[in-house]
Amino acid sequence: MIASKIRNLKPNDMQLIYTPGVAAVSEEIFHHPNQIFSLTSKANNIAIITDGTRILGLGNIGPFAALPVMEGKAVLYKEFGGIDAFPICLNTTKKDQIVSTIQAIEPFFGAINLEDIESPKVMEISDELEKKISIPVFHDDRHGTSVVALAALLNSLKLVKKQLSSIKIVIVGAGSAGYGICKLFKFAGCNNLIVVDSEGAIYKGRDGNMNKFKKDIANSTNPRKEKGQLSEILKNSDVFIGVSGVKNLLTLKMIKNMNKDPIIFALTNPLPEINPKLAKKAGARITATGSYMYHNKVNNALVFPHLMRVILDMRIKKISLELLLLTSKAIAKTVTDRELDYEHVIPEIMNKRLQKNITLALSKFSPQ
Amino acid sequence: MIASKIRNLKPNDMQLIYTPGVAAVSEEIFHHPNQIFSLTSKANNIAIITDGTRILGLGNIGPFAALPVMEGKAVLYKEFGGIDAFPICLNTTKKDQIVSTIQAIEPFFGAINLEDIESPKVMEISDELEKKISIPVFHDDRHGTSVVALAALLNSLKLVKKQLSSIKIVIVGAGSAGYGICKLFKFAGCNNLIVVDSEGAIYKGRDGNMNKFKKDIANSTNPRKEKGQLSEILKNSDVFIGVSGVKNLLTLKMIKNMNKDPIIFALTNPLPEINPKLAKKAGARITATGSYMYHNKVNNALVFPHLMRVILDMRIKKISLELLLLTSKAIAKTVTDRELDYEHVIPEIMNKRLQKNITLALSKFSPQ
Repeated sequence: MIASKIRNLKPNDMQLIYTPGVAAVSEEIFHHPNQIFSLTSKANNIAIITDGTRILGLGNIGPFAALPVMEGKAVLYKEFGGIDAFPICLNTTKKDQIVSTIQAIEPFFGAINLEDIESPKVMEISDELEKKISIPVFHDDRHGTSVVALAALLNSLKLVKKQLSSIKIVIVGAGSAGYGICKLFKFAGCNNLIVVDSEGAIYKGRDGNMNKFKKDIANSTNPRKEKGQLSEILKNSDVFIGVSGVKNLLTLKMIKNMNKDPIIFALTNPLPEINPKLAKKAGARITATGSYMYHNKVNNALVFPHLMRVILDMRIKKISLELLLLTSKAIAKTVTDRELDYEHVIPEIMNKRLQKNITLALSKFSPQ
Repeated sequence: MIASKIRNLKPNDMQLIYTPGVAAVSEEIFHHPNQIFSLTSKANNIAIITDGTRILGLGNIGPFAALPVMEGKAVLYKEFGGIDAFPICLNTTKKDQIVSTIQAIEPFFGAINLEDIESPKVMEISDELEKKISIPVFHDDRHGTSVVALAALLNSLKLVKKQLSSIKIVIVGAGSAGYGICKLFKFAGCNNLIVVDSEGAIYKGRDGNMNKFKKDIANSTNPRKEKGQLSEILKNSDVFIGVSGVKNLLTLKMIKNMNKDPIIFALTNPLPEINPKLAKKAGARITATGSYMYHNKVNNALVFPHLMRVILDMRIKKISLELLLLTSKAIAKTVTDRELDYEHVIPEIMNKRLQKNITLALSKFSPQ
């Protein structure tokens, strides 16, 4: 928000906050560009950028209808992070124009949040922006989802007494969220990970329906080159992570074919891959969704306000896997051993320890 | 500002303000696009757009150093108009890219305010945008300055008992402000108007240093095709309007050569064409500046928060000369006959009647 900190402006205040007073502030920044962070609101402003092509479960509804979703997000940034977030809904879906528009509006912002843009375009935009602008580019669908999913999984594994390095995890969906989860889980030490898209399992050498991000997935996952549809791949697995965008994709039978104590994270919004109550009936030991209507709310809202607060405060320039992993662990340990149970593997968004724990975990990134 | 109207958010509120609640609002807008005005913040958001090429008296200091000036402006929009104004400082000075960036970010905003962009480029941008986007484009240097200058002049003429239609007015500066003043003064009934730039008087048939806006000036002003420098042109004139960008341009001698009861509006910021105290010594009857350091503050801040409030509320799509003239008259008459004197030809910005009077004056534009 841009508003005066001076209450009850008087005529004489105008000399200070407007002309000629502001000229002195501008001159200082002109001569010492870094002062923009302390003399303006830049360090507290982020742009939430969408082109309206992949809104929630609504799909390609355009930049106008996308606005309420971006406003909802901005409210959470303000409430939980104290950040002023501005919904920039773009009237273009062209990759190059999206990149050049963000480059053009960069000066006012301390960071960029890419939101609900179709994949893989959005990941190409994110990669290009990292080279072209000097503020961090947070891609919530990719980064935020991966952090919160890993946090919930780390706590779930404690309960079922399994190790990340020795279990089989199946991720359904190879868009931004699937790609992000795959990268972070690998980085965290997961050895047997298979990503499934609408064609079935992704494996090294697959021909159909590939792009450069799926090739990256193929090269680093699925060590035994398993092929086939979800029902096949899910057999003898320990964890299902759904970011497919398809409601009711998961059947009771598929869950019954999983290993003992199956963990089911059905994260598609607004309606999950399976209703968690049904999943429990089929034997799921732990269930989670991305929705606020069920327990274990594995929702990005746990991550983005707090993580961006720290990124802005510490002037972190790049979102690295190391930073994401530390954030996941901080979120996981916010649930104390006493609180931890099958229906509480992830903290509530109102948990006051969240921001403190994330800040402490990332203190090593603090400028020296 | 984007923040929640719900105080003390509770976990259950998340279903409403974020997922899945916002989906219903998005769907409504998708099916009934006009609902965006009542269901989102669009109708209260404006973008203050600059490329940093012509900031105050500081010149081309770039988009980063420009930010404090835009923030100062945003504060005034909020304080006096209740409008959320967002400083969009562009990291490009190319005309086409400025136009395409504004087109791209249009959906979130109810109106555009172009600010401190070099002339004549900014006027070409303004003209192009009027064809390409569906929200009003307010160009403060052009529109705002003309409205406040005319308001002050109308009251000044009452005091010295002269008629707009029969006096000689000299405008110094043919950039955005000079062009805007020229157009509005002509529309208001001024018959003998001469615009002077760094080459001297602009007249029909002049060759050097012209552009399409100066040609428009040449075709509609200077009926006797007077030629020469400011000191020549100012002889036997009644009013000097300085929007030259040059401090101390006006000399005592020039004022002495003007008609009886000269009116001197030295509007260049932060330092005027002449110190008003000096001007008085040379015989000026009424002086005004754009600065908050002197009396008669002929500053756009009197106009933009109130006019934009009305434009947003009435969903006015285009800034017409008729609208500007009505606004000028409303501002002028906000100074009551009892208040009106040589040092009070224009209301103070804190005057509570300003917004009411402008709203009433523009009520004819209200949607039927």
